[in-house]
Amino acid sequence: MIRYHMINGELAPAAEASVHVTDLGLLRGYAIFDYLLTREGQPMFLDDYLSRLLRSAELLRLDLPFDRQELRRQVLQLVQANEMREGGIRFLVTGGPSPDGYTPAATPTVLILAHPMPRFDPQTYEQGTRLLLYEYRRDIPEVKTTNYIIGIYQLPRLQAAGASEVLYHDGRHIFETTRSNFFVVKKDGTIVTAEQGVLKGITRKNVLRLAQEEFPVELRPPAIDELHDAAEAFVTSTIKRVAPVVQVDDIVIGSGRPGPVAAHLREKLIAFEQQYIARAAPSS
Amino acid sequence: MIRYHMINGELAPAAEASVHVTDLGLLRGYAIFDYLLTREGQPMFLDDYLSRLLRSAELLRLDLPFDRQELRRQVLQLVQANEMREGGIRFLVTGGPSPDGYTPAATPTVLILAHPMPRFDPQTYEQGTRLLLYEYRRDIPEVKTTNYIIGIYQLPRLQAAGASEVLYHDGRHIFETTRSNFFVVKKDGTIVTAEQGVLKGITRKNVLRLAQEEFPVELRPPAIDELHDAAEAFVTSTIKRVAPVVQVDDIVIGSGRPGPVAAHLREKLIAFEQQYIARAAPSS
Repeated sequence: MIRYHMINGELAPAAEASVHVTDLGLLRGYAIFDYLLTREGQPMFLDDYLSRLLRSAELLRLDLPFDRQELRRQVLQLVQANEMREGGIRFLVTGGPSPDGYTPAATPTVLILAHPMPRFDPQTYEQGTRLLLYEYRRDIPEVKTTNYIIGIYQLPRLQAAGASEVLYHDGRHIFETTRSNFFVVKKDGTIVTAEQGVLKGITRKNVLRLAQEEFPVELRPPAIDELHDAAEAFVTSTIKRVAPVVQVDDIVIGSGRPGPVAAHLREKLIAFEQQYIARAAPSS
Repeated sequence: MIRYHMINGELAPAAEASVHVTDLGLLRGYAIFDYLLTREGQPMFLDDYLSRLLRSAELLRLDLPFDRQELRRQVLQLVQANEMREGGIRFLVTGGPSPDGYTPAATPTVLILAHPMPRFDPQTYEQGTRLLLYEYRRDIPEVKTTNYIIGIYQLPRLQAAGASEVLYHDGRHIFETTRSNFFVVKKDGTIVTAEQGVLKGITRKNVLRLAQEEFPVELRPPAIDELHDAAEAFVTSTIKRVAPVVQVDDIVIGSGRPGPVAAHLREKLIAFEQQYIARAAPSS
């Protein structure tokens, strides 16, 4: 049960938490966000998410009134106020209440929202997921902006096809999906994923680190053509962790069944998370 | 003085007018809007703006709970409540309070906001304005979405260059600026402006109608190369009406001074507006 959100550093009852209609995040979509999970009461990899948030804010010239230490304090206060063991935490930083409906305010609006733990169907790990190709690049891909019009616009088409997300490409190479990073596993075991022109996922970073202990890794956007000859494919995201991809448009990936590399990396990631929780928990 | 906005069909005091933090317009930029002016108490070309709003909503599958007649009634109520003679009216329709922070709600949020009359420097008509080229196409150009990240992101660069807007192109052809339609006047008097892949401005429509009475018109995106040989260029928008463009990047347009065609069309547009006001005003 979510009882509070944090608005500009102050707890606000969830039902009444709102932003003024002149806010540039609402009027012009001028906003960045970030999203992490709390497991066993621990905001997972909070410092990594804060680093990305601060970088997004800097790139969009949103002059945050709170530093890393204060944002961390606000997250912990929000988790405590909601007695949240498992759930989602969303940062949202907007251009603020604009004087003219276009120019950013001197001070951004800073929201930290608490959400129930998102549902993700565990059958995806056993059955795999389908993606649909879509020629598109996000406007400023390295910044986690709130612009999801293309992804949301495609929802009915995805539903009709039994697919979970659209996979963005530039006609030759694959970059990312709407909300995940995308990986190809070649038949020789090499793992390939884009390094430039994508949002650098925190789960992507953790999975790459774990993968590099055992597999060769190539940091470059996979070619669409490589899908035909791939052993496996998978996506990573905060919510999905490592989810196997079994089909892209009409291209069946590998055997058409979830592959062992994705399953192995997911297990390693869960173990890595457990280590994080154990380290973060106050010793009793 | 703005005292009220309209939220989901109800007047709300301006200072308290807000949307909940779960609104998809805020969280994911899933929103459309439209903007018109009120002159002498008349919402100018309201039916044209309503048509475009309804079309944008349909294209983004935002199932408006109000029909054209009811939206018109709400606008008139808002104008009356604010005793607004001259000002701006903004429609904003969002994906509503999302159950999961991603999926649109069954019923959109519908805001109608009242704004003071925007300032536009009349010296622009005498001195002309500069634009900067930028290779970019809006995501769904025919829909007036709230995604203005690129335009706002470029504000400091524009300011440094003494330019007013970025002019979007695809490497060869020019489509539109962030907030205006773009026109080239060739040396033989032909007027050229894009018809596809741009937001169809209401001012663009009115200006084209008036232009076609006197000038040949070609509805196609002007080539960047044509700027070198153009007699004039201008932009049209609700706020700017017809504003002469004297320079694009380093390309001086024509004589480098505002041209007669833009000035003439602006005069015709003002006369056309006066006719609209005279027709719309209740006979006394």
